[in-house]
Parts: sequence; structure tokens; C-alpha cells
Amino acid sequence: MMKGHLIKKGDNPDITKERKTTTFCVNKMAEFIHEGADNVRRRQEILEYVERHPELGDKIPVEFMTREERIDRNAQRAVAMTDHADCIDGSDFFGEGMYYQTLVMGRDFHGMLLHYSMFLQCIQSQCTEEQLDKWLPLTVLRGIIGTYAQTELGHGTNLKKLETTATYDPKTQEFILNSPTISAAKWWPGGLGKTCNYAVVMAQLFINGENKGPHPFIVQLRDLDNHMPLPGVTIGDIGPKLGVNGADNGFLMFKNFRIPRENMLMKHAKVLPNGEYVPPRHSKLGYGTMVFTRSIMIRDQAFMLAAATVIATRYSAIRRQGEIIENEGEVQIMDYQTQQYRIFPQIARAFAFLLAASEIRDMYLNYMEKSQTSSDISLLGELHSLSCGLKAIISFETAQGIEQCRLSCGGHGYSDASGLPQLYTFAVGGCTYEGENIVMLLQVAKILMKTVKGIKDGTAKLASITEYLKRNSDSKSQFRDYRTTSGDVIINDFENIARNQIYSAYERFNDNLKHFTYEEAVNKTGIEMCKGTRLHVKLYLIKNFYSKIIGIKDDDVRKVITDLWKLYAFDMLSHSTGALKYNNYMDDKQIHNIKEGVCYYLNEIRPNAVGIVDSFHMSDRELHSVLGRRDGNVYENLIEWAKQSQLNRSEVLPTFKKYFEPMMKEGRSKI
Amino acid sequence: MMKGHLIKKGDNPDITKERKTTTFCVNKMAEFIHEGADNVRRRQEILEYVERHPELGDKIPVEFMTREERIDRNAQRAVAMTDHADCIDGSDFFGEGMYYQTLVMGRDFHGMLLHYSMFLQCIQSQCTEEQLDKWLPLTVLRGIIGTYAQTELGHGTNLKKLETTATYDPKTQEFILNSPTISAAKWWPGGLGKTCNYAVVMAQLFINGENKGPHPFIVQLRDLDNHMPLPGVTIGDIGPKLGVNGADNGFLMFKNFRIPRENMLMKHAKVLPNGEYVPPRHSKLGYGTMVFTRSIMIRDQAFMLAAATVIATRYSAIRRQGEIIENEGEVQIMDYQTQQYRIFPQIARAFAFLLAASEIRDMYLNYMEKSQTSSDISLLGELHSLSCGLKAIISFETAQGIEQCRLSCGGHGYSDASGLPQLYTFAVGGCTYEGENIVMLLQVAKILMKTVKGIKDGTAKLASITEYLKRNSDSKSQFRDYRTTSGDVIINDFENIARNQIYSAYERFNDNLKHFTYEEAVNKTGIEMCKGTRLHVKLYLIKNFYSKIIGIKDDDVRKVITDLWKLYAFDMLSHSTGALKYNNYMDDKQIHNIKEGVCYYLNEIRPNAVGIVDSFHMSDRELHSVLGRRDGNVYENLIEWAKQSQLNRSEVLPTFKKYFEPMMKEGRSKI
Repeated sequence: MMKGHLIKKGDNPDITKERKTTTFCVNKMAEFIHEGADNVRRRQEILEYVERHPELGDKIPVEFMTREERIDRNAQRAVAMTDHADCIDGSDFFGEGMYYQTLVMGRDFHGMLLHYSMFLQCIQSQCTEEQLDKWLPLTVLRGIIGTYAQTELGHGTNLKKLETTATYDPKTQEFILNSPTISAAKWWPGGLGKTCNYAVVMAQLFINGENKGPHPFIVQLRDLDNHMPLPGVTIGDIGPKLGVNGADNGFLMFKNFRIPRENMLMKHAKVLPNGEYVPPRHSKLGYGTMVFTRSIMIRDQAFMLAAATVIATRYSAIRRQGEIIENEGEVQIMDYQTQQYRIFPQIARAFAFLLAASEIRDMYLNYMEKSQTSSDISLLGELHSLSCGLKAIISFETAQGIEQCRLSCGGHGYSDASGLPQLYTFAVGGCTYEGENIVMLLQVAKILMKTVKGIKDGTAKLASITEYLKRNSDSKSQFRDYRTTSGDVIINDFENIARNQIYSAYERFNDNLKHFTYEEAVNKTGIEMCKGTRLHVKLYLIKNFYSKIIGIKDDDVRKVITDLWKLYAFDMLSHSTGALKYNNYMDDKQIHNIKEGVCYYLNEIRPNAVGIVDSFHMSDRELHSVLGRRDGNVYENLIEWAKQSQLNRSEVLPTFKKYFEPMMKEGRSKI
Repeated sequence: MMKGHLIKKGDNPDITKERKTTTFCVNKMAEFIHEGADNVRRRQEILEYVERHPELGDKIPVEFMTREERIDRNAQRAVAMTDHADCIDGSDFFGEGMYYQTLVMGRDFHGMLLHYSMFLQCIQSQCTEEQLDKWLPLTVLRGIIGTYAQTELGHGTNLKKLETTATYDPKTQEFILNSPTISAAKWWPGGLGKTCNYAVVMAQLFINGENKGPHPFIVQLRDLDNHMPLPGVTIGDIGPKLGVNGADNGFLMFKNFRIPRENMLMKHAKVLPNGEYVPPRHSKLGYGTMVFTRSIMIRDQAFMLAAATVIATRYSAIRRQGEIIENEGEVQIMDYQTQQYRIFPQIARAFAFLLAASEIRDMYLNYMEKSQTSSDISLLGELHSLSCGLKAIISFETAQGIEQCRLSCGGHGYSDASGLPQLYTFAVGGCTYEGENIVMLLQVAKILMKTVKGIKDGTAKLASITEYLKRNSDSKSQFRDYRTTSGDVIINDFENIARNQIYSAYERFNDNLKHFTYEEAVNKTGIEMCKGTRLHVKLYLIKNFYSKIIGIKDDDVRKVITDLWKLYAFDMLSHSTGALKYNNYMDDKQIHNIKEGVCYYLNEIRPNAVGIVDSFHMSDRELHSVLGRRDGNVYENLIEWAKQSQLNRSEVLPTFKKYFEPMMKEGRSKI
């Protein structure tokens, strides 16, 4: 038995059996996943800290609360969490910060989320020195709670068309904020409904009747003493949602609401007291923050997918159903090939996504370091494009993957006890926020089209991510057999299909350009362009994953990661057989072999599956799932969980006296 | 402008514009969808009846209620709904019954659902004459409320392994019910938690220590007067779920609970007073009910997908975002090819599913009629297999399709105001209940393997559904161009790829049979066998849809339905390009043309999209969606909807005084 196993006395024997057959050291795998022994140790320390403090935990699970109770709980928790913030390294938001927040809050947002993730960012990056002096301490010391109000009822991604106006009045040196139409109402900002008393508001700046475009303003919304909305401000909660119902996403309307001139955030553009407008020197300065936010989001998504695989894998180890060999008893459902096919590719995906999140974070930090000493911002465009593409692919495949894990748990997966409904409804929001996925895919596609044009013109300067686009396509694949193939051959196959798709989209796009404007041509090629982006991003994921294998020193861990990578690769290739057969690049025999490869690696992973998901190092607290419990004792704990149901607080509900008793009495009286 | 349009004064001009360009008569299309003018008229009458009766409606939308409030509301509504049952033709459950239930309950289950859908069925089909006399009036007159308790914590599809026992005691002529383990607890039955006082319980029948297998028993669970669980019975609600939280799905455990011998349902098997067991004469008699239940379920799923397309299409008509032609203003998002690609194939799917549901209902009724006069039950096996396959494909694609519609509505799709979260969480349950989808796919696959073996042996008697399997595969597709191709050519292409997949799975299966037992071989071929089933069922869907076009008399309607069918067909083919290129059946040019076909039919459907979804004849009440409102006035009504949020009942929540005020005061005091 290898080190680092999670076996304890009293565990379900089926799950213990799985842990005993694990062929690698779970500790070492956890260190690979969490990028070092220190990080694993810190995860444990933070967990113990949180568990020692009852104010950071729930007496009854959150899923049994009403929306009002959840809002109250999340408010209490947000304050307690920030009270205790010293237990983590605050500079490591990407690592310790996110982990701590998940442990304390669970899978929900809360009223102060945007205070830290957006409002503080705006203060830091958009204030002048004087503004910083005023707003930064108030924000950091939690003297006010802010949010970021950009999206409107009628306006999402197209920032230019926001309708909220900020009209400068030089007489009083104030801006007058207005929501001129219903569709101008701010809508969605987190914490805006009931929690926040301040917001950074994006509004069209009008000076002397001229529109200078959207600019940020810091705006007080509620009275500091009684928290009532200020006159001229209408605020409220936008109502229940598919997920994150512990958060008060809000709406906001202004009617002739005046703020001082100094409340426009003026680090970049300025309005002087006399109304003179000073435009910003650089545009696109916001890209850096967006890259950072998306790299955090990708990592968060990857961990949600990982959590779903832990739950589904452990449950599949203890659930027995159906006989494969007569009279040998019911089998663990993980022994079904179809069950493996549902879950194991999701495990592989979680690895691919986590590794991509780390890579993009490193690229970003590297860029930030260089940008201190140089004015070269060429990498930023590339990073921005990559982060958009990854965000779209990862959020969608995470949601799909969680749902596959949920479905693989049968009826129990539909219960909140599994934790999977909460994971899905939370994660799938990521397909929409921080840039709607199809908009993201099209953005990247446009850049790819430009790149291909540059290659054809001979003007392209290619970074490593797009370098494969300038190579010629091969006429035949070198792939022969899944058992003996090298990773480079697989990557080359993937490069070929990505390149073919992108060039074929380019040809259609170019044809359309002959008859239509640029945007019309983009629209008429939209479907094929999105397909190109998808393959481009998946190629990046597969290459990046592969590049991480070489550095693994432990042989046992490397073997398992290699199996996962191969499953990831063959699974993706098996879903692109049409593309692989384009121009007879592969023949039927090769395709057949790829499909065999998928089954082969499912089988290879089977005995290590529980060990692999144990290595994600997720405590029962973090998982919040009866099905995913470390000890595998699912059934007795499902009953214990259910006993807490709101409806079980009394044996007989009022519905009996009110409705059912009269109905049944009348029914019986007729007999 | 064509007849039957839904234009009214005050509507959003964008949606009126769409209705004005519709090229067909919406009334006639509605008659096609709902199978006749009478049915459309009845839908309207039932709607008006329901709207006239306030006890059948909500004062505040259900999504603003707590779970307890929803349970109360659903109890009231279940009683009121059945009080008013005379307003519908009770014999037409498939049509009027389901529609009425949806109008009154919305998208949720309720405590009395299984009383009608399962308990009553059991009474009718499994009772002796004497038992009927006793139980049928009580059930029909609502003197008791029953449910059907089969699934256990540890046992789903494998009925044979249920653990609940019913041990016959000849001394007292009673059965003693026990839940010998925790995993034996009944789990999931609808209404079991709090509503029902009776259940048909499936339990292993033990006589003299011998297990006779699972049998049905009618069991009183609660006291008729005070509704308390009877001694020896433990019951409760199983807790919150992804959806249907207005229903009290329950758990149930027995401890030496005695029921009279007469409470075993003895139409088929019997236990005589002395303990003698009389086995049933036929097995598999339950198939008929399962076919009927699944045909209802398929229809229900199809209408849920249809509802999602109504919402997404109407919203896409009024939502404007982004400019395609400069300075011409933001465009309706339905003008984006990528948006069309998300929604329109779902519209086509909804048609395919609805038509399949009608067909299988007719086949079932036809069979039932014949079975009165003949003992030929050969069609039943075929019907059963088809209904399993359709259930699996339709429930999964419905869920996926609703989610695509939801995502296509951007941020507003995530809000409960859209109605789409409720649709998704309700519909996706269908992937699991009434037979878990993968189990269903494998069941059908086993039958297909048997069919292929029969063809090879020359012993197969093929019904029309599988007849294509005995034809030889063509070497080349006859398909040339999407504009001129006949439907038969497309169907022939689809037959080829389905047949290829099924035969290739058969070959692997047969190879595995040389080394393994039957069940092992099935398991080792599971993935490929499921793929075979999927193509087989999709082929049925595409053929059945096509067969309905010929009967349409109205030219304009037929044109639009044909466009939808072609979109459906080309969309499916474009997702099977690998299969189409197998053995060089198609070349790259043909594949390219298929993809062009998808874009072409998206474009054809675009001007009629709103008209098509209007033809589903779904009222605002049925849709329950702010985004999908007939009048298109979405934004003002989103605000009106949000004002009802629980959190908006006061301007300032208690969270301010309790948590945020102290925190902010302290923060400000440090400055």
C-alpha cells in the first residue's frame, strides 16, 4: 500500500479496497496537482483553522435554508471570513484566497465578493493619487462596501451602448446621473441589491451635450447610518436564479442623482472643473485585469469539475448494481465501461484545465514583471486572446462534465445531498459572466483570421501558441497504435485538424468578404469560425498538459498522469473523427485504433481512479457531498442528511388539516 | 399578414415586425402540431377555464416561495385541480390531462401525482375482483392518497435485488414487512414523504424461508384521522433536489409491520391462506404500462423543449446587441448565425420529438385494441424497445436543448424570471427516472445485437423499425446538394451510418463473446453498443418526422415543416461526419455541402422563427417566463417581476444592523 492513502477504520470496505490497490503515492500526486508540498500543507492548515472556528461554519447545511436565511448566513460569513483573513497569505489570492473562500462560503457568491474582486481593483487601477488617498483606506478597512455596476438590463457585452448617463454640470462641478430608459437600469452586479452602499458605476460621460463614451464613477448609493437608498437612487434585488441565491445581485436606477466632479475615477481620462475633457493616453489598459480575473475563474472552474469527479468516482466505488458474472453478487458500478466513459474523461479534463490555469497565471505574472521595466505589451494581446478562448471552452466543458458526473450518480445525483446540483448551477454561470462564451469564441476567431491573413501576407509575427498555423498540413497521419504512439504524433494530428478547420473557416470568411462588410462576413462564417477557435484552444490544452508530464520525477505518478493525458487526447480525437478523415488524413483503421485507445485507457485508469481523485486533496467540508464522503458510508448519511429537511421538522404538515383531510373524508363518505 | 398571428397593440415593435413577415398561417401550423382544430380549441377552453378560477392560480409566482410555501401551494393546488377535473376529458390524459396539469401546477410535481400515475394504475392492473371492489372506489374518490414505493436507497433499476421483505405468517395470515438494512429504505417515491397515507410497496415475498421474488403489497402508512405514521413505519421527506421541490419525495422503513394477507395484490401471483404460493401465468405483463408512461413522458419532454424554444426565440427577437452594419443600430440577436445555430435546431428537435410521441401513442393504442381480440403480443417487445430508446435520446437532448436555449439568453437566461432554470431542472430529471438513460440504451442495444444475430442466422422476423438492418450497405452516398436532394437520399444516408455502427458494435461484441460471458461481453462493448442505439433511435426520429410531411395539405405550412425537417437532418448529419466518411461513403465535398445546408436552412427559418414558435400555442401562463412573453415587453416586466423578490419586502435587511454596520463603523473609525 502506498503512502498518503486516506484509509481509516470504519470506512466502507469497497472504498478501502480501491485505496489499497492504488499504484502510486497519493501525497506525491497531490503535490503535483497543488504545485508543491508547501501548498498541500497550507491547504491542510487553512482547513484546520477554518474548522476550529465555528463562526466560519454552518450548524445546518445551507441547502436547507430559505433564501432569506441564506442571505443572512452569507452576510455573517462574509464579515467573519474577512475578520479572519490573516489566516491566509492575502497576496496569494489565486491559491490560498480562493481556497479559503470556498471553505468558508461553500459554492455560492456573497454580498462582498465584488467589493474585493472588482471594486477594490477599480480603486487601485483607476484612481488618481488624491482619489487613492480618500478611497483606498475606506475600501481596505471595510468602512464602505462597494460593487461594480456596468451591465444594464438591455446591455451586456457591448459596452459602447450603455445607456446610463453622467452629465457634467460645470456650475456646481457635479455629474448628474440618470437612467434615461428602463433598459438603462443596472442589472446583475453582485451585492448591489441589499449589501453595498457604494458602487463604481459605468456611465456615458456627457459634456456640453457631447458623448465622450463610458467612464467609471464612484457613487454612494445608501445612507451610511441607516442604509436607506439615497434620494434619486432606486435599488433592489433582481430575484432568484438558477444558482448563487445567497448573493443579492441587484438593480439600480438613477434619477437626477448628483455626485461631485471628484467622483469620476480620473487616473486615465479626466474632466477639469471648467468641463474640459482630457482623454486617456492608452486604451485597452483593462486587458491585464481581465486576464487575471479569467485565470482565477478558469482555476475555480477546474476545481469544481475536479470536485464533481471526486464525488462521482467515490460513489461509483461503493454503489453496487447489476450482476456481470452470475452469482458473484452485484458489481461496483465503476466496473461498467459506460460508467468509466462518463467519469474518467472528466478527471482527465480537470487535470488539463488546472494545468492551463497555472500556465496562464504564470504567463500573466511574467508579463506583469516584464511590463515594469519595458513598455512591450505585445504579449498582452496574445494572453488576452488565450484567456478568452480558455474561459469559453473550460466553463462550458466544466458544466457539461459536472452534469455527466451528476447523471452518472443516478437518482441520488439529483438530490442536493450529492452536492452536484449546487456545483452545476454555480459552475454553469461561468458560461455567461465575464464574457458570454460565443462572444468570446468569435473574438478569438477574429484574431485567428487576422493571424492567417498575416501568414498569407508574410506579415505575421507568431507567438508560440499560433506558430503551428504557418506550417503546412501533412497529407497522412503518422499515428499507428495507441500502445506505442508518441505524444508528439498525437499533438501533430491535433495541430493538423485545428489548422485545417481554421484555414477552411478563413477561406469561407474571405469569400464572404468579397461581397459583404467585415462584420457581416464574420457573422456569415460564425459557426465555422467558432469551430476553429474550439480546436485551437483544445490544441493548447492538450499541448500544455503534455508539456507538464516531462517534469514529473516520480515514476508512478508520471505513469498515471500519462495515462490521463492519453485518455484526454484519444477521447478528444475520437470526437473529431470527421476532421481526422478530412482529405484522407487518417484511414478507418487508424480511427478504429483511436476508439480502442479510449477503452484501453479507461481500463488502465480504473484501478487508480479513487486514488487519483483522493489526490485532489479535497476534504469532506470542501466537497460538501454525502455521495462523495471520504469514508464511503453513503447510505446511512443520506438518511441523516434528509432528517434535516425543512419538511421533517414535524411529522404532520399543516397541509393535512387544510387540504387533504377534508378531501379524503368527503371521498370516504361517498362509499 | 397571415391568419392566426398574435399581434396586439402595445407589443414590442420588434416582435410585431417578426409576426408580420411570417409566411404561413399560425393557426394552421398549430393545428398540425396539436393534431387538429378541435384540440387547439380545447386548449383555449381549458386555459380560459383555469384562468377563470383563482384557486387554480398563484398570487405570487412560485419561484418566490420557500420550500414549505411551495409544498403548501402544491397541496392546495392538487386538491383544487382534482376538484375541477370535470373541465377536461379525463379519458384523454395524454392530451387534455397533461395540459391541464401543466397549466395548474406549473413545472413541478406534487404529492398526488403518483396517486394517479402509479397507485391507481397498480390498483387497476394488479387487483383481483374483490380487491378492486375494496380499493378502486377509495382511490378514485380520493378517500386515501397512495404512492408507489419500489426504489430503495441502494437499489434502482435492478428490481431483483430489492431488500424490503414481506414474510408470510400463516398463523395470523399476515405479511410482516421489514427493512432489514439501511440500504433497504424506500427512497424517492413522490408524495411518500408527507402527503400519502397508503402505498403499493414492492417487497421480496418470503414464504417458509423461501424467496419468491418481488411482489406488490398495498400498505397503509399513516393514521386516517391524525395522519401520524403508524407504529413500525418510519417516513420522511428526502430533502431538497435540483428541481421539483414542491414535491415531497419520501423515504420509508418498516420494522415488523404487519398487514393482512389480502393486501398482497393478487391478480397475477397469489398466496393462499395456508401459505401456498401460486405463481403468475405471464411474466412481462408490465410492459404495456411502461410503454404508455414513456409515451406520455416523451410528449411532456418535447413540450418542455418547445417551451424553451418559444422563450429563446421571442427574446432573441427583441434583444438587440452589437452592430453588424455600422451606424444602423444594434441588431436583433436572432440575426447572428451563431444564435440561430443554438436555437433553431432545438425547434426542429421539438417537432421531431412531438411527432414521435404521437406515433408511439398511436402504436400503443393500436396494440391495446388488437390485444383485446388476439393474444399476439409480438408488437409489444418492439414497442417496448422503441419506447426505451426514445426515452433515453429525447430526455437527454431535451435537457441539452433547453440548456442551449437558456445559454442563448445570456445573463437573463440564468434568472428564474426567464423560466428556463425551472424548465431545465425539471426536464433533466427525465434522464434518470423511468429507467436511467444508459441502462435504457444498453437494453435496446442488446435487442439490436440479437436482431443482427437473427439476420445473420436467417432467423430474424423484422418489424418495420429494424427492417433497414438487413439491407446491404451502399458503397457511396447518392447525396449531392442540399438544395435539390430528396428526403429518401438523406434517410438512406442515415440508415447507412446507423447500420454500420450497429454491425461494427456487433462484430466487437461477437469477438468478446468468444472470450467472455454474455454480460461481460456486453460490458466490454458498452460504449460502441450505446452509439449504435443512439443512431438507431435518431434514424427512427428522422424517418418518422419525414413521414408526417406528406400528409400536410397547406402548402405554406408544408414548406416550413420541410425546412425544419431538413435542418434537423443536416444538423444531425453534420455531427456524424466521421461516420459518413467511414469506408469513403461520402467525400469531403459532400460533407462540405451538408455543413452549407445547415447554414442555408438556418437562414430559411429565420424570418419564420417567431411564427413557428407562436404555433406551439403556448399561453403566457403556460410559459411562465418574462423573456418569453407574447408581447415582447421584457425589460419593464423584468423589473416588475424582481420587485416581488423576497428580499425586496424591505429596503434594509436585518443583515445591516447585525453584521455590516458594526463592521463598517469599525473600519471608518480607523481612518
